[in-house]
Amino acid sequence: MKLKMKIKKNGKNPNGVGRSLEEVSIRAHELSRGKVEQIGRVTIKNMKDLAVFYAPGVAYVSSAIRANKRLSYKYTGRGNRIAIISDGSRILGLGDIGPEAGLPVIEGKALLFKRFGNVDALPLAIEAASTEQIIEFAKAIEPSVGGINLEDISSSKCFDVFDRLQKELNIPVFHDDRHGTAVVVYSALINAMKVVGKDIKTAKIVINGAGAAGTGIAQLLLAAGATNIIMCDGRGIIYKGRNDNMTPTKELLAEYTNKAQIKGQLADAAKDAAVLIGASTAGAFNENVIKLMAQNPVVFALAIPEPEISYEKAKAAGAVIVATGNSGVPNQVNNLLAFPAVFRGALDAQARKINTAMLQAAGEELARNVKKQLLSIDHIIPNFINEDITEVTANVAAAVAKSAIDTGVAGIKVDPAAVRKNVRLILKRYSKMEKTIAKLGSEREISRLLK
Amino acid sequence: MKLKMKIKKNGKNPNGVGRSLEEVSIRAHELSRGKVEQIGRVTIKNMKDLAVFYAPGVAYVSSAIRANKRLSYKYTGRGNRIAIISDGSRILGLGDIGPEAGLPVIEGKALLFKRFGNVDALPLAIEAASTEQIIEFAKAIEPSVGGINLEDISSSKCFDVFDRLQKELNIPVFHDDRHGTAVVVYSALINAMKVVGKDIKTAKIVINGAGAAGTGIAQLLLAAGATNIIMCDGRGIIYKGRNDNMTPTKELLAEYTNKAQIKGQLADAAKDAAVLIGASTAGAFNENVIKLMAQNPVVFALAIPEPEISYEKAKAAGAVIVATGNSGVPNQVNNLLAFPAVFRGALDAQARKINTAMLQAAGEELARNVKKQLLSIDHIIPNFINEDITEVTANVAAAVAKSAIDTGVAGIKVDPAAVRKNVRLILKRYSKMEKTIAKLGSEREISRLLK
Repeated sequence: MKLKMKIKKNGKNPNGVGRSLEEVSIRAHELSRGKVEQIGRVTIKNMKDLAVFYAPGVAYVSSAIRANKRLSYKYTGRGNRIAIISDGSRILGLGDIGPEAGLPVIEGKALLFKRFGNVDALPLAIEAASTEQIIEFAKAIEPSVGGINLEDISSSKCFDVFDRLQKELNIPVFHDDRHGTAVVVYSALINAMKVVGKDIKTAKIVINGAGAAGTGIAQLLLAAGATNIIMCDGRGIIYKGRNDNMTPTKELLAEYTNKAQIKGQLADAAKDAAVLIGASTAGAFNENVIKLMAQNPVVFALAIPEPEISYEKAKAAGAVIVATGNSGVPNQVNNLLAFPAVFRGALDAQARKINTAMLQAAGEELARNVKKQLLSIDHIIPNFINEDITEVTANVAAAVAKSAIDTGVAGIKVDPAAVRKNVRLILKRYSKMEKTIAKLGSEREISRLLK
Repeated sequence: MKLKMKIKKNGKNPNGVGRSLEEVSIRAHELSRGKVEQIGRVTIKNMKDLAVFYAPGVAYVSSAIRANKRLSYKYTGRGNRIAIISDGSRILGLGDIGPEAGLPVIEGKALLFKRFGNVDALPLAIEAASTEQIIEFAKAIEPSVGGINLEDISSSKCFDVFDRLQKELNIPVFHDDRHGTAVVVYSALINAMKVVGKDIKTAKIVINGAGAAGTGIAQLLLAAGATNIIMCDGRGIIYKGRNDNMTPTKELLAEYTNKAQIKGQLADAAKDAAVLIGASTAGAFNENVIKLMAQNPVVFALAIPEPEISYEKAKAAGAVIVATGNSGVPNQVNNLLAFPAVFRGALDAQARKINTAMLQAAGEELARNVKKQLLSIDHIIPNFINEDITEVTANVAAAVAKSAIDTGVAGIKVDPAAVRKNVRLILKRYSKMEKTIAKLGSEREISRLLK
């Protein structure tokens, strides 16, 4: 569907009729009636086609798979299909609004998976009263998909779901809020450290927020060799032996972070820190905290839609490099750079898992994809204007597939160069398909135009 | 994907290289790697599109749905999306082969749902150890879909699953093996009775087979007013008080059929019958059984791929009208005439159920769609050569939507004429989309061609 409406920065549309983003979003969703749809990959023109692709011919295919289940990757769409599963318990900044209300977000994610990674991601916002029910649902759907993307599930439920599924399934499980964010933050930190001349391994890194994102970032940085991380949550610094507001995940993090056993609040942690990462809430940082940091502070304020501190204020307080989740200022930390590419690589290797090594490989490759001549305090992350996102995705997917093979979780052996080539090919194909989508539009749009 | 291969009746391809249907099916599935894929209904060209369809704009849509869950039909793809759910326990003639092996069949069904009804049907072959697990899965997925099509689930599991879901869900549930077959058989029987000048209400109708199909046929014919039905299963005639091999479903059928309480085998039932319907196994009927029937016998032998008795043999034994599940002879009973249209109508009315009245309306409308001048012993069912299937679908969908409204299960009030018009529109749109599909082909095909 080609929207006739455009939004201007001031929230008015170019035709002069005032339309806020709210009005445009609601109307656009009403016109499109869904952001994804399912089409055939083959056409049925006659009874012969039916005989080949349905009864009786398909019985031969079923029999072949029955003898060897791995052939489901060869003869069906399973190898390119994942399930996006959410219980609607933590949708954007809206909290626990339920599966129906979460569905447009999950559909949006499905659209992005296809557009940026050619992954067929089924948008499944489910009714689930317990952690166990989410797990049961994912286990049931395993035979039909090549992976599972957990989305917008509240913590600590999301940790339990992920841990169980990672153990009990033979397909990759990814929690975008946790792992996708971690990959992009890690890549941004690699480049930030390069620019300010510091070392991730020894730098003092403070992470504020111990939800899915904060935990994922800490775990990936630890795996990458960081030795001096301090984590804070709403009650202050997390340390071994703290009794207040702890969870099994925080207990585990306390084992590997804050070796000096510092206690206190965020300001106590931030003293002399090289890096301050917020995965918490709007306004959680102030200028004073930044002023306590070591020389050339690096501040990532990742809360969305409003960051812990704005890009401008963080700069004014002395931060040399600032990154946020917003698109209007430099250094946007955008999961879109990670999830389509990571899954693309995992699917192309028919990986049984997305392990930490694969996430690390993704982060490192993403960091390398910032154009060398552009790497600077205001460009530590690839973006849609300066980098060719198809190439970035191709490179990251190849790195992920290679890592899957290297760590023994790949189901097939693929040449990373072939993965790279294939990504270019399928994204080009999809962009051609988009021309048809734009031309044919949604049913509603058509009927409106035909009236 | 445009297949370069064609099958000839003798199983050889036209290029002279011998290829059996098995070889062609396997190769075609390998090339297409899935028979369905998911694409966007909108295109993402820039950050503004992202803001409208994803964060932050989508939050307004989510908030609207949170306040009124029914808006999920207006602002998401839910209203055009169903889940095809199978546990792989009764796949075609192959039996309990498991979900992975069932997946190509379920994907084929998904393809047909789109091609013939523009329904987005997610192919979900699931791992489920019990009836309860299938039910839980369906209940969990309800918020994301507008309906559920149960597929290839063994009886009597399928009856329990359907009954529970029909009661506990607020979206339509349809079991194609049971309800789809029943609709087409009912429509064929209406026309057959017209041709031989008999009345469904009083005619003696014998149904051999009390699985999903036989049960569905009996139930729909009873609802349509048939008063003289006798059912048989592998143990012979079903009667009230029989102790052998009974199930709750058969007990219920025994209440409403076989009022004379006849006992014995199929031959005892067939004596003086006007109609003999087989929903059983290959070879279950012989010439002698047909010779026992009343004048102008009507025989539907529906087992697939091999019928209870062949078209030719049944004719030779004196049957005036013969229908089978095969496409090579007249009167093919093909579910494809029912399931896309029935769901199309149910979705367009946002129906909460597909009730018996809607199935009846579908069968009656389907019967009316045989071209009047063609109605004859060898043409009692619309087919793809003599009738315009898009028009048939449009008419049946409109009848189903009307019946949903009339019986109070519709979620919105729609004009049946608008449904008819919309079906034509969206099927035309999809046929345009198929041109792109044929041109772009599958990834594999492309890489092969590009080599």
